[in-house]
Amino acid sequence: MKLEKLVGDRFKEMPADCEIESHGLMIRGGYMKQVASGIYSSYTPLRRITRKIEQIIREEMDAIDGQEVQLPVLLPASLWEESGRYEDAGKELLPLKDRNNGPLVLAMSHEEAVVHLVREYGQSYAKYPFMLYQIQTKVRDEARPRNGLIRAREFMMKDAYSFHTTWEDLNEYYSKFFEAYEKIFKRVGIPEIIAAVSSTGSNMCHKFMFINPVGEDTVALCSECDYRADAETAESIVENKRSEVSEEIKLVHTPDIRTIEDLCRFLNLPKEKTYKAVVYQKNSNDDYVILFIRGDLDVSETKLKNYLGDDIRPAIITEDSGITPGFIGPYNLKEGYTVLFDKSLKNTNNMCSGANIFDYHYTGLDVERDCGNVEFHDFAKIKDGSICPKCGRHSIKISKGIELGTMLQIGTKYTEAMGMQYLDKEGKSQCPIMGCYGIGIGRLVASICEAHHDSYGPIWPISIAPWQVHLCCVRPDNLEVKKVADKLYEELLKHNIEVIYDDRNVSTGVMFSDADLLGVPVRVVASPRNMKENCVEIATRDKSISLKVPVDEAVEEIMNLINKLKAEV
Amino acid sequence: MKLEKLVGDRFKEMPADCEIESHGLMIRGGYMKQVASGIYSSYTPLRRITRKIEQIIREEMDAIDGQEVQLPVLLPASLWEESGRYEDAGKELLPLKDRNNGPLVLAMSHEEAVVHLVREYGQSYAKYPFMLYQIQTKVRDEARPRNGLIRAREFMMKDAYSFHTTWEDLNEYYSKFFEAYEKIFKRVGIPEIIAAVSSTGSNMCHKFMFINPVGEDTVALCSECDYRADAETAESIVENKRSEVSEEIKLVHTPDIRTIEDLCRFLNLPKEKTYKAVVYQKNSNDDYVILFIRGDLDVSETKLKNYLGDDIRPAIITEDSGITPGFIGPYNLKEGYTVLFDKSLKNTNNMCSGANIFDYHYTGLDVERDCGNVEFHDFAKIKDGSICPKCGRHSIKISKGIELGTMLQIGTKYTEAMGMQYLDKEGKSQCPIMGCYGIGIGRLVASICEAHHDSYGPIWPISIAPWQVHLCCVRPDNLEVKKVADKLYEELLKHNIEVIYDDRNVSTGVMFSDADLLGVPVRVVASPRNMKENCVEIATRDKSISLKVPVDEAVEEIMNLINKLKAEV
Repeated sequence: MKLEKLVGDRFKEMPADCEIESHGLMIRGGYMKQVASGIYSSYTPLRRITRKIEQIIREEMDAIDGQEVQLPVLLPASLWEESGRYEDAGKELLPLKDRNNGPLVLAMSHEEAVVHLVREYGQSYAKYPFMLYQIQTKVRDEARPRNGLIRAREFMMKDAYSFHTTWEDLNEYYSKFFEAYEKIFKRVGIPEIIAAVSSTGSNMCHKFMFINPVGEDTVALCSECDYRADAETAESIVENKRSEVSEEIKLVHTPDIRTIEDLCRFLNLPKEKTYKAVVYQKNSNDDYVILFIRGDLDVSETKLKNYLGDDIRPAIITEDSGITPGFIGPYNLKEGYTVLFDKSLKNTNNMCSGANIFDYHYTGLDVERDCGNVEFHDFAKIKDGSICPKCGRHSIKISKGIELGTMLQIGTKYTEAMGMQYLDKEGKSQCPIMGCYGIGIGRLVASICEAHHDSYGPIWPISIAPWQVHLCCVRPDNLEVKKVADKLYEELLKHNIEVIYDDRNVSTGVMFSDADLLGVPVRVVASPRNMKENCVEIATRDKSISLKVPVDEAVEEIMNLINKLKAEV
Repeated sequence: MKLEKLVGDRFKEMPADCEIESHGLMIRGGYMKQVASGIYSSYTPLRRITRKIEQIIREEMDAIDGQEVQLPVLLPASLWEESGRYEDAGKELLPLKDRNNGPLVLAMSHEEAVVHLVREYGQSYAKYPFMLYQIQTKVRDEARPRNGLIRAREFMMKDAYSFHTTWEDLNEYYSKFFEAYEKIFKRVGIPEIIAAVSSTGSNMCHKFMFINPVGEDTVALCSECDYRADAETAESIVENKRSEVSEEIKLVHTPDIRTIEDLCRFLNLPKEKTYKAVVYQKNSNDDYVILFIRGDLDVSETKLKNYLGDDIRPAIITEDSGITPGFIGPYNLKEGYTVLFDKSLKNTNNMCSGANIFDYHYTGLDVERDCGNVEFHDFAKIKDGSICPKCGRHSIKISKGIELGTMLQIGTKYTEAMGMQYLDKEGKSQCPIMGCYGIGIGRLVASICEAHHDSYGPIWPISIAPWQVHLCCVRPDNLEVKKVADKLYEELLKHNIEVIYDDRNVSTGVMFSDADLLGVPVRVVASPRNMKENCVEIATRDKSISLKVPVDEAVEEIMNLINKLKAEV
């Protein structure tokens, strides 16, 4: 199509509210426009990119025997009540009522809907396994939508659900899915994707992370072995050595001590010898949960939620709570709280903790000696230099990443709750085992842009670029140039090449900066200067290739270059 | 793919809640499942049909220079306040609030959103004309969802919006669109589509009606000329002849007269000599609107709304209203109501109307003589045998139809309300003129099914069929048959033919009834009987073609048949 007719404005200035490059470039390049916080309309270039990505995803889902379906955006709340998520989902779930006061929700995911779709179908073991997927709008009322398509409130998602009769079968299919995801991310041009193992409680889960500084998620990577894990759930391993001489517990006055750093300086202790207390509250009844962890470590809220359920939030400590903020410790702590211990505190002595008295701490604490039966669990966040849970060396590196895909062996959570059963070979009722698999498509586009851009605009991989060729006619008022460019345009279209053709009477500056913003991988320029040599210029958007070729050979050379770029993806 | 793996149940019994064939067949055939009233999930066969229709629509939209965009389902209420529709839209518009209490709506159409998308872009006349379209979910909270995808609450729609600087330009583009719609309906296999002229007030509008008895809309067709119109807005022409002798107005006692039929019998009058009064109320202030029309005619609420606006509903007449139901007439009617006259009452005398007194009527009424200055407007529904507004003969036939597409010259309604302006060549600010164009895709699928089915299932046109070939292997336990069928399956896939392959060990009865329900246009049967002759059977779903061909020639014959069917569409 002609660029002159392409709807959407392109402009130079980075909009003030754009914190990351992809967001800024996709606004500046006329890809999208914000309608409300976290809600965007797509112009044609973005729609074209998205459709190509959708097609790649479809091909890979079909290749592993996926069946495309469509589940509605608007769902009866009753389905979510069946699964128990209506209460649990929190404020991201948007509820509404229809004209008859019937409660509905906007789907933020479709586990309930897919179980509803197949629960009559899947009544015999012979029907299994099967996998359904869809590419459908999701709505999540994010507390803080940001970074354009990275965290939006309405977004397009590929979600897939597989159903199995055995965990072995799920495991096998899960591996296939893993490979399909690797293919998808490779084909759309995400260069470095890490399949980080994660966990929600006991179930296997992988997060496909694009390692990038703008990411809000963190990955733990071992520099010595192939361990890659979601830093939120990666096992935190610490080596505690007890001192040979165990001190007695002792109350010490610690005036004006407000932080662990203050305390360590005051008592000349390393952080490893201190307790940190982190307080949460249950959403359901406001009960307090006090979690003790070694002073140099942080709590992973994901691990805490995997242990306690989602019913938890950071606490607001009231005066009548009996809790002494800043001086909380496990010894002589009042009863009535849920008290948890991270395993970094196991096998420790001579520790310092709060004394539950304002301006006082204990030293010489040995929790197992002083507090009786104590259970330890893994609540700590892994950190740079931590011990790798796989190879055992101090080789963990923490990187930021954008979560582009998830795979989760969700098991029978939904089928059990929603009463989906099949008869097995022995005629016994069983709940099928599910796997869930998601890719956020808008976030993927933004990530591809983060991965492939320069300061002038995106550099789209040819597999998903809105067009393959950007044809510039410099000085269209020059009849000779215009004739050559027009002919080339027609020829390229005849060869089924997707061309955006700029024959506007604008300066080369505007022409090229618009081309940069549209990021089409192959640029072809017809200009008076080239015409003198009877040539056109052919270049890649990233400038790595730039040739002058005779006009007669242009179509062939362009097709060669397109094929070369395709082969590289 | 193998039918054995196709998710979805097929069954024999027409579900009790299905009133029309397409609804029943699409439930029975495993095409969709109801999630809530008017909300459906699609299984794979329906998703495949829908995607093919979407692709046909895309091709035709692109061919008239449409640019595909995507507008969100979730819109801020403020956009709808700008256009004035937030109040007017009524209960079909679903409102909701986000976590910060921000008012949102679920898009039932996207005029506001598209104007929002382009109002900065379209600031110069040089940018015009342009057309944007999308294929996107719509939500309308219908009072009475019914007939499956014919009237759903959530549905997929292709909506398009063109922007112009002159009405001439819009008219020209509107004609192009008209042709594109004709192509689309032809390509998807809707046999008889009527482009019925309609009107919303003064603007040109067409409704593309599929003539079918299950339709809820009505079309007025002239049997003598090419006049085709939406029966709701078609001009009603009546020939009134005044009697030569004008009677005086006279109060008559009409005890126990409750209907016009009673009245005509009691006074020995034809219905044409009576007044009918229809009472409405304004939604905004409950004021009464009394509409008088000739006793043999009905009111078109569409015409009434075009005249008065959407702020109107059938009245509930209270005792203190001063209105005497059953005996309402224009003479001696109390003041304080909006009183309207249909033009069927113009130039009439010796009429009978209610007397606004219980059990009394007037005869001898000449409204222009007795009630002073009276204005007449066209509020009557055209009916069978009415005068054709084009050729003037009594040749109107009323048919039922399903509204599949609309085209509307909506003008500056939205651009004016939302402050979208461009500078014309003289540097003067103008509001662009819009055209809006919609096709409901789910309703289209259901209509194709209504048009093409027998009692055993749908007969999908090849252009949109979920698969092109349904391959049946009868008696797969017969190794010879199975080998031939397997090989044929592989060969067809190699030739890029879409095949659904049934090699289940089921009876031929089940096999063929499933094939009928899936409605795939070409059926190929390998069976022990055919194998004796080294043949397979090739037949069309509608049974019009049925051949036995040697196994070696099967692929070629199948491809020939597919091409023949494609050429017919």
